[in-house]
Amino acid sequence: MPDIERLLVAFDATPLAEKALEHALTTYPETEITVLHVIDYVEERYGAESLVGTEELRERAHNRSSKLLDNATDMAAEHDRTVSTAIRVGDPAREIIRYAEERDVDTIVIGSHGRSFVVRMLLGSVAEAVVRRAPTPVLVVR
Amino acid sequence: MPDIERLLVAFDATPLAEKALEHALTTYPETEITVLHVIDYVEERYGAESLVGTEELRERAHNRSSKLLDNATDMAAEHDRTVSTAIRVGDPAREIIRYAEERDVDTIVIGSHGRSFVVRMLLGSVAEAVVRRAPTPVLVVR
Repeated sequence: MPDIERLLVAFDATPLAEKALEHALTTYPETEITVLHVIDYVEERYGAESLVGTEELRERAHNRSSKLLDNATDMAAEHDRTVSTAIRVGDPAREIIRYAEERDVDTIVIGSHGRSFVVRMLLGSVAEAVVRRAPTPVLVVR
Repeated sequence: MPDIERLLVAFDATPLAEKALEHALTTYPETEITVLHVIDYVEERYGAESLVGTEELRERAHNRSSKLLDNATDMAAEHDRTVSTAIRVGDPAREIIRYAEERDVDTIVIGSHGRSFVVRMLLGSVAEAVVRRAPTPVLVVR
């Protein structure tokens, strides 16, 4: 049994995030898993094409985030697992790292490519930033 | 027990490589571990200050590599473990990835900062290149 008590899976709306969670569920069958989604308003705004009001944008983002984490919970249930979920708002890499520090996480699991190519080029790769700055080992799944 | 049968630990003469191996030994107590050191003649030449002949340089590099892997074997023995070891020659990231592909490795474990700062700036970060191009999940240890 691995000497890992608490995994944090960084989760966004990409196939690789699902793969990262799937990997965590199958590879660490006895480890406590928290699935974290970070709402990034900067990225939200690109998608909104500046036509929607801020309040509505936030509500939409939080609804989307909840649905995303429901998917994660469903994926876990398919493996007869339960996972904790969490939502944070801010810069994804910074929030993932902050969460890992606060919750005494052993390892962060993250997909190698989160965001779409264009947004990554604009904002930088979340996975890369997490690998550079995380206080824990980081398992990068592709 | 984790669903991982074969770990590859990328190992060079840095404290973080030892930490990566230590992490693999303690976190995956029942997984087969191979410790790979890649001799990088380009880097060797920087260290040699161009005063030593090529043949002697190669012999020295291979001796150093063997000693390094003896250290890895000793570290494993302290955990009542045995590890396989392997030496390859070439570009570290490329050889690590090639080895992982050939040997059907499940996960590559690597320290976040292998080489010295100056050499990394000249040649690029091995860990980063492995994370970008590996066929497997990569566990980056810091």
